Amino acid sequence: MPEHGAHSLYHVRQERLAQAILAAGLDALVLNPSPSLTYLTGLHFHLMERPVVAFFTAGDKPQIVLPELETGKTSNLPYPLESHAYGEDPQTWGSSFGQAMSALKLNKDARIGVEPRWLRVLELRLLEYAAPRALFTSAEDLIAELRMAKDQAEIAAMRQAVHIAQNALQATLPTIKIGMTERELASELTLQLLRSGADSNLPFTPIVCAGSNSANPHAVPGERPLQTGEMLIIDWGASHQDYLSDLTRTFAVGEITPEFANIASVVLESNAAGREAAAPGVPAGLVDNATRKVIENAGYGQYFIHRTGHGLGMEEHEEPYIRGDNTQLLSPGMTFTIEPGIYLPGRGGVRIEDDIVITESGSESLSNLPRELKVVG
Amino acid sequence: MPEHGAHSLYHVRQERLAQAILAAGLDALVLNPSPSLTYLTGLHFHLMERPVVAFFTAGDKPQIVLPELETGKTSNLPYPLESHAYGEDPQTWGSSFGQAMSALKLNKDARIGVEPRWLRVLELRLLEYAAPRALFTSAEDLIAELRMAKDQAEIAAMRQAVHIAQNALQATLPTIKIGMTERELASELTLQLLRSGADSNLPFTPIVCAGSNSANPHAVPGERPLQTGEMLIIDWGASHQDYLSDLTRTFAVGEITPEFANIASVVLESNAAGREAAAPGVPAGLVDNATRKVIENAGYGQYFIHRTGHGLGMEEHEEPYIRGDNTQLLSPGMTFTIEPGIYLPGRGGVRIEDDIVITESGSESLSNLPRELKVVG
Repeated sequence: MPEHGAHSLYHVRQERLAQAILAAGLDALVLNPSPSLTYLTGLHFHLMERPVVAFFTAGDKPQIVLPELETGKTSNLPYPLESHAYGEDPQTWGSSFGQAMSALKLNKDARIGVEPRWLRVLELRLLEYAAPRALFTSAEDLIAELRMAKDQAEIAAMRQAVHIAQNALQATLPTIKIGMTERELASELTLQLLRSGADSNLPFTPIVCAGSNSANPHAVPGERPLQTGEMLIIDWGASHQDYLSDLTRTFAVGEITPEFANIASVVLESNAAGREAAAPGVPAGLVDNATRKVIENAGYGQYFIHRTGHGLGMEEHEEPYIRGDNTQLLSPGMTFTIEPGIYLPGRGGVRIEDDIVITESGSESLSNLPRELKVVG
Repeated sequence: MPEHGAHSLYHVRQERLAQAILAAGLDALVLNPSPSLTYLTGLHFHLMERPVVAFFTAGDKPQIVLPELETGKTSNLPYPLESHAYGEDPQTWGSSFGQAMSALKLNKDARIGVEPRWLRVLELRLLEYAAPRALFTSAEDLIAELRMAKDQAEIAAMRQAVHIAQNALQATLPTIKIGMTERELASELTLQLLRSGADSNLPFTPIVCAGSNSANPHAVPGERPLQTGEMLIIDWGASHQDYLSDLTRTFAVGEITPEFANIASVVLESNAAGREAAAPGVPAGLVDNATRKVIENAGYGQYFIHRTGHGLGMEEHEEPYIRGDNTQLLSPGMTFTIEPGIYLPGRGGVRIEDDIVITESGSESLSNLPRELKVVG
């Protein structure tokens, strides 16, 4: 996000974190390589067999424990950060953890927030070794609160990630032929994503599934060839400057039955109802209710077997989750997917997914590719 | 790995695991989505906000806890597996964990092995909730022992992953031009990897770094244009049927100084010495000693700032690590990288990396692209 002026950006975010740490009654937040670490520091590390953890408190300079060969990444940062580098021998890692935690006086009865979806037993055991009496507790809500409302530069990056993904699909559609396998089509789409300017670490491998495979929301592209009369679901996305897109469109391979055409129009209406319902001050659950009601009224309620959507930003799935029981109020800058679907077991499915941002007055879909069923092949 | 006959393959692996669980005095092994889970079951799950864990014991049928919308993946498996599916509400997940653990009588003082590099606090806390008195202990060595020696089908898959990567680099080299950025070159190589048949989830984004950036072993490709006189390091790999390749070659951009040419020939000799030293019955550390001695004798010891290599297979980094202090004896079927390097800070570096398999009589390099310094641009 160089548009921000990197200096002020990370300062501002770390300052907001400090307030949140105080408000939550925590002594520190500890992060391993994760989107939250990148959000707060601009640093990118791989999750690997050598642990990297950064400690943030309300008042002191952040500390980072990392392998010696990664220390180049922490020079010339636009904010203070103290490094504790360790060598190749795993026996010595615990003492580097101890140094960082002592510097922040975290080796007593500290309450330390963690990200349960990112921190591994590898790092947890080293933290427990360095501070046996500390309590490690989930800081998931605190972090979601920090990251949920995106600023203009973040939304601009997501808009670009959507733009890249849409261009890639448009370049792919003319190549679809009956007899082509799901995997071949997924590879072609991947090529087009990169050619359209996606970062080479895609948020996920495109999901391309047809026929009975399209009735499984989490299918993996396989060796089955596309056949006339099948539904074809394509679920794909791009990364741009650490921000993601995640879209789905459904196609008819040649001529399809009236029932398939009908479920496609029900899902189209459901998707529109969800986008209509999304607005500031509205609970996330109400967006789910809106999409679900359309599908239930059409008699397909039992075939809409997942939530309506999920937050999207630096992660493919993040807060806010668009689930019926989620009372989280939507507010400007929140970004999430709306992706209702109908899946007829063994026969075929339809899903239409857009990326939405809540605005001051309602919501905007960052994606605008036609949603109507289109015939391919 | 369909070549194996999937039925017998997973049975055999689960049977070997059962023996290892007994020998280690464990009551169970619990795995979340990881290469080990795929190795034992053939199943692929994403690491996401919804936990998936599988439990293996010495005597009972394996159990898996997973989201309802993933249950399609566990039907028609060629071995018994009992599923405990949960819905969208996170409050209910703990009871699914409890059911699976009760079925295996793991809710008492069980000793349960985990993978510290994969299991997250998310899953650990649910396991602790379901079995508050159980002890969760690292099963890293047990798993390494199971997976370290590859069979013929695994080696064939790695050979193909190397072949794909080599073809991709050869297609990329003619496109290299002075003035091109590191990122542009990395994108072109990614395109060529996919075109050469790599699975679309690459093991890692190609590392392309030139000039002073090549002196940082973990550099990220940036916007710097290639300039005459620079060293250019390309570190890349492909995935094929869950198995990986990981290669590095170094190039001269136009005319370089005699010192750069000299360190390139020292690293070439070092790489050869490592390949020569690798043989069954030899400690892994001795391979590190062999590469390091060549570089030390040439006066560059302080600039070889990492271990010689790492195991390679379903993971980019796995056992055996080729580190001076590793007494692990090499044996037939073990696969790892040999990748010595010299990094002159602020100026430039050289690394030459091959993928090696230990044979009955010595070792074989799966990679055979020329290792000598080649001029590009």
